[in-house]
Amino acid sequence: MRDDKDTKNSGDKLSRLVFDRRRFLGSGLLGGLAALAGGRRAEADGLSTSQLVVPPWSHRPGPGVATRAYGQPSPYEKSVIRRFLPWIRPTREASVSFTPLQDLHGIITPNGLFFERHHAGTPEIDPQQHRLVIHGMVEQPLVFRVDELMRFPSVSRIHFIECAGNGAMEQHGAMHNALQFTHGMLSCAEWTGVPLRYLLREAGIRKGARWLLAEGADAAGLARSFPIEKAMDDALIVYAQNGEPLRPEQGYPLRLLLPGWEGVANVKWLRRLEVGDRPWETREETATYTDLLPSGKARQFTFVQEAKSVITSPCPERPMPGRGRFMVEGLAWSGAGRIKAVDVSFDGGRNWRSARLKGLVLDKALTRFEIEWNWQGGQALLQSRAIDETGYVQPTLGQLRAVRGMNSMYHNNAIQTWLIHPSGEVENVQLDV
Amino acid sequence: MRDDKDTKNSGDKLSRLVFDRRRFLGSGLLGGLAALAGGRRAEADGLSTSQLVVPPWSHRPGPGVATRAYGQPSPYEKSVIRRFLPWIRPTREASVSFTPLQDLHGIITPNGLFFERHHAGTPEIDPQQHRLVIHGMVEQPLVFRVDELMRFPSVSRIHFIECAGNGAMEQHGAMHNALQFTHGMLSCAEWTGVPLRYLLREAGIRKGARWLLAEGADAAGLARSFPIEKAMDDALIVYAQNGEPLRPEQGYPLRLLLPGWEGVANVKWLRRLEVGDRPWETREETATYTDLLPSGKARQFTFVQEAKSVITSPCPERPMPGRGRFMVEGLAWSGAGRIKAVDVSFDGGRNWRSARLKGLVLDKALTRFEIEWNWQGGQALLQSRAIDETGYVQPTLGQLRAVRGMNSMYHNNAIQTWLIHPSGEVENVQLDV
Repeated sequence: MRDDKDTKNSGDKLSRLVFDRRRFLGSGLLGGLAALAGGRRAEADGLSTSQLVVPPWSHRPGPGVATRAYGQPSPYEKSVIRRFLPWIRPTREASVSFTPLQDLHGIITPNGLFFERHHAGTPEIDPQQHRLVIHGMVEQPLVFRVDELMRFPSVSRIHFIECAGNGAMEQHGAMHNALQFTHGMLSCAEWTGVPLRYLLREAGIRKGARWLLAEGADAAGLARSFPIEKAMDDALIVYAQNGEPLRPEQGYPLRLLLPGWEGVANVKWLRRLEVGDRPWETREETATYTDLLPSGKARQFTFVQEAKSVITSPCPERPMPGRGRFMVEGLAWSGAGRIKAVDVSFDGGRNWRSARLKGLVLDKALTRFEIEWNWQGGQALLQSRAIDETGYVQPTLGQLRAVRGMNSMYHNNAIQTWLIHPSGEVENVQLDV
Repeated sequence: MRDDKDTKNSGDKLSRLVFDRRRFLGSGLLGGLAALAGGRRAEADGLSTSQLVVPPWSHRPGPGVATRAYGQPSPYEKSVIRRFLPWIRPTREASVSFTPLQDLHGIITPNGLFFERHHAGTPEIDPQQHRLVIHGMVEQPLVFRVDELMRFPSVSRIHFIECAGNGAMEQHGAMHNALQFTHGMLSCAEWTGVPLRYLLREAGIRKGARWLLAEGADAAGLARSFPIEKAMDDALIVYAQNGEPLRPEQGYPLRLLLPGWEGVANVKWLRRLEVGDRPWETREETATYTDLLPSGKARQFTFVQEAKSVITSPCPERPMPGRGRFMVEGLAWSGAGRIKAVDVSFDGGRNWRSARLKGLVLDKALTRFEIEWNWQGGQALLQSRAIDETGYVQPTLGQLRAVRGMNSMYHNNAIQTWLIHPSGEVENVQLDV
């Protein structure tokens, strides 16, 4: 045991040196580098596996498979969870949980961490009993069981869903010092389902039909109107999420997916689609989910989640680990299509540099970006701005307020500012410029 | 309650009619269609939401979010699980669980259902204690903590992993009447990690170095040699899987990913990479994971999982639901690159039709295909064959046996045959042609 402990300590020392060397590499202090590298080499040359700490898990077999029919995260990752706001008491009726964007990588949100918002809890629906009805201005009303829908040709696509209220409170000034709460009503998955147009063609749309109503089977009977053009474009009736059956809080067994459109329009636990000639003016498109403008008029049916981005590392939960080279990383997305570019500013928007887009750049999907930064310990104001393929540029909070005024809540896609303190701490500040 | 029940029955009847109509549509029996559609229309015109069954979950709110920090599947999907073979008693030391491919959609395997194979159980590793050492023929041996690796520039890519033993028993004749067991040692995820070449450049490779050894921190100390060309190409040191931290059975906190190469080479719980001038000839590349040829010689280091495909619907677990139009669907993949095409035969390989590739077609990733089939209730022999971008064509079992003989176990990428019975049942048969 004593040997193990000693070696472990020497490993720790060694890894600190490695760590330091990378930092010095970045700052170009080659004298310091050579000295450090020399010191480390002498120590490291003596390394062998037997000298390295042999941890307890290498001494005895771990648990077998018998109890893991459905796998779970490591017990060491208990902090990678959805969270709800402490000051919004989560009731059974209406609540929201936020995705821990600060802990995630790539563009897929695992199903267990996909944000959820509901207005009457999460119903536990028996898929055998569930029906989807299509009626109204159609030639032939139709009723579908889930297994019938699964026999239609399906498509699988990776799309984000963002709540229209994501960052709502932040329009009035910095509220939450946590990425999980400023931006965490945002997730992205591979969805599989039936294009809605297949079903509508089967039903036959009557002349004069312009809108659809989607209604959920939850106790809120949440319902939203949406134009028929979207239904005939890329709308999906979804039954699978990241390969497996849809999760209960995502609408099991069926949800509507309107790619790129505000979350609430992607009606969960979908039981009814009615075809009509005008919107229904439901509660969730009149009393809520509208944008109250300075004129006193409210914008309605602002479906598209416009281009937006946020730096996920660093962020309040992921402070700077120290001076030197650092890979700034973030997410960008647009409900209007693909992300074309992301710029990053380190001085609150005075100067901008182009970030690299990483990995897949897909239509209406989260897109990763990164840019190297050599931080010398000074105060800095980090921002990112997304540009999508339509040419739309993510606005500053000042630009957004100039149009929307101060009464608007939803659809905040303003540029986020993170203030980097010399200590490395990261603070949410909303620059009104 | 009586009203609900009545309406529900009428809904059931209605949906049966809808179902039948689609079937007749496919068979072109327009007389039958008109009659059915007319009958359904009359009945359906009276439909309103109040007449449809109002299920219990629409009457009262469901559970709230407070207890769902990490979400779980619907209780109605308890059969969508990994399974182990009943005749291979799962011991703590060595076992395997299979992905339920018959239940999945798209190309992402959710982390809870990703197949697992281990040789000494699944260690529960404390990431704070874990170290990755790079040593051997390098200028500067290095030791990394997990958080240090996470500061390197990362990449995220969607890749499959397939066990070299996937379908091994099937080379000698049909063994399992279940897709989950013939092909379920196959899964696909979005992986995030550090390109190994970044770390090797940091360490400095000495002249003459040709191979690396990767060793796991499990009690088996599972170790595999692999050529340095792969290390400098697309090899990754992975810490995240579908966005979240790697799962324990996938190597938490670190695994090697050699995209497209046999599963066992993607060493999990990675603790050591040694650089050398020749392979180490470890147990898992000599006693096992080699292909014994008719000559008595064994092929070693057959890393690439060559192009392969399988029809996932229908399959033994998903029999034909009835006569008429049916969307045949499946998965194709190649360790050599992208899938270029998939052909499907309905007569045991005499005639072939081109299937459609669906959704994303990515390098070394699962790729979905589909093809419509109008089944009239006769016996049929369904097969699929994948062609990858190198021009490689998936072989028949006969072609594979002609080269490998009957002693070979691993690397079975032969064309799978499903025998469709007139009853609609699907049987695994291995055609030796």
